[in-house]
Amino acid sequence: MKLTILGCYSATPRALNNTTSQVLEINNHMFLIDCGEGTQVQLRKHRIKFNRIKHIFISHLHGDHFFGLVGLISTFRLLTRETDLHIYGPKGIKEVITLQMKLADSWTNYKLIFHELTSNKSELIFEDDKVEVHTIPLNHRVYTNGFLFKEKEGERKLDIVAVEDANIDTAYFRKLKQGFDVINRDGVLIDNKKVTKPAKKPKSYAFCSDTMFKEDIVPIIENVDVLYHESTFLEKHANLALKTKHATAKEAAKIAKLANVDTLVLGHYSTRYDGLNAFKEEAQTIFDKVELSEDGKVFNF
Amino acid sequence: MKLTILGCYSATPRALNNTTSQVLEINNHMFLIDCGEGTQVQLRKHRIKFNRIKHIFISHLHGDHFFGLVGLISTFRLLTRETDLHIYGPKGIKEVITLQMKLADSWTNYKLIFHELTSNKSELIFEDDKVEVHTIPLNHRVYTNGFLFKEKEGERKLDIVAVEDANIDTAYFRKLKQGFDVINRDGVLIDNKKVTKPAKKPKSYAFCSDTMFKEDIVPIIENVDVLYHESTFLEKHANLALKTKHATAKEAAKIAKLANVDTLVLGHYSTRYDGLNAFKEEAQTIFDKVELSEDGKVFNF
Repeated sequence: MKLTILGCYSATPRALNNTTSQVLEINNHMFLIDCGEGTQVQLRKHRIKFNRIKHIFISHLHGDHFFGLVGLISTFRLLTRETDLHIYGPKGIKEVITLQMKLADSWTNYKLIFHELTSNKSELIFEDDKVEVHTIPLNHRVYTNGFLFKEKEGERKLDIVAVEDANIDTAYFRKLKQGFDVINRDGVLIDNKKVTKPAKKPKSYAFCSDTMFKEDIVPIIENVDVLYHESTFLEKHANLALKTKHATAKEAAKIAKLANVDTLVLGHYSTRYDGLNAFKEEAQTIFDKVELSEDGKVFNF
Repeated sequence: MKLTILGCYSATPRALNNTTSQVLEINNHMFLIDCGEGTQVQLRKHRIKFNRIKHIFISHLHGDHFFGLVGLISTFRLLTRETDLHIYGPKGIKEVITLQMKLADSWTNYKLIFHELTSNKSELIFEDDKVEVHTIPLNHRVYTNGFLFKEKEGERKLDIVAVEDANIDTAYFRKLKQGFDVINRDGVLIDNKKVTKPAKKPKSYAFCSDTMFKEDIVPIIENVDVLYHESTFLEKHANLALKTKHATAKEAAKIAKLANVDTLVLGHYSTRYDGLNAFKEEAQTIFDKVELSEDGKVFNF
């Protein structure tokens, strides 16, 4: 699982601060999460192949999370993309994109498929045989969802030597991978665990931005490997966090602890602070394994 | 008259190529012309004070000329701007901006005043005592205007020594500056030209992008000091220019020559070419005084 931070600052893009966008690579998928202004340039800088992006998830319709979307869609068209593109985001996202297409008197030559979200409960919004994506209802000034990306439990791996020793016909290999006991060529029932090894532990990633401290999300994100939780402010500006429905680094850490995640990644920083270390220090008073997102940083989990 | 090129490439922003936007400083005004994605970052890079921008002119609603507008408006709001902002652009621009504001559940705390354009004839769209702005109807795939910025004829300058020698009362200085002959303290009529000098020649700038070769614009832009004319292609791609309703460098030069302008500035280049010299060389087969716009370049005219 690889996470590339294209932008991790709040409010407005600046020469050295990009607004929210990140690419999650999980099980051969390349999911784009949020798309602030300038995301297409960040994708180019990080040499991410446009055609590999087939699903874009937009948390909410504040500009620092989606003003780059229409430009990206338009650039895909200019580059004669043919691959379908799925957009998941709040109701209204289709209207605003199609209006801009109409005004430019242009349309995409690829299929643009909108999945508009309106529910206040967590729902499954994408699924294939390897991965699931669920929404995480958040609490911000406008309708906002985080997203939970989960690998499915994989198949067990054959222990080839043990399988041969047990004299099992290849016709049963599929059943073995699925965890069943099978009968060998001599008519003996073979215990699955003796000839297979457990599947790799499925990875999971939860993206939670923007939101104020919201304990309700804990059951949804429990035990994830990586939680990205916004930390716009430090505790000394807790009043501002409350007023603008954002979280502090300490609150992000509380959620990480309650949900028993493995690693917390902080982000969506206000640019009012000098440097990012104070965010990490504040979070570590509550939760130990904290990473700081930074524009251009790549995490391999 | 100072022209700062924030972006001069066509189609899509890239790491080193910004799409159309420029700032024209003329007679204490700071006019922003077009606003491709990333314009707000370019403004920051070039240290242009946001509050000095009070008028934004949008040629047409293709993304490479206006996808940065909503972000700029939104950033002005976050920076608690109070100064009025006037937006001039094709009909539809108000709807698309206001829809995005509505979806973000936010509105500007400054006055945002839209001047939607629909005419196919040149019209006066801004005027104060120093400067006029007129539209230049262009021919592109969607409704498009160029913009002509003209200083008004200034006041004549007093030749202070001559004025004193002529024994003219200060009460008449205003009249003298306006070009009238006046009567001196001895009752003698004084010829204005003997005691004043001509006003500085008014400057003018015409921005023409995007457009195919359109001879009709010549009477509107005749004798301007500086003509910015798009040159998306070279002549070897004249077929593409025709098909996409763009111009070649040679066609830009033909317009410059027909309109008897002083300086031609080329821009809106396709990124298919290696370097820009070929654009200048091609234009100079027709017209001598050619400048190449480049991102970040500042011209003082």
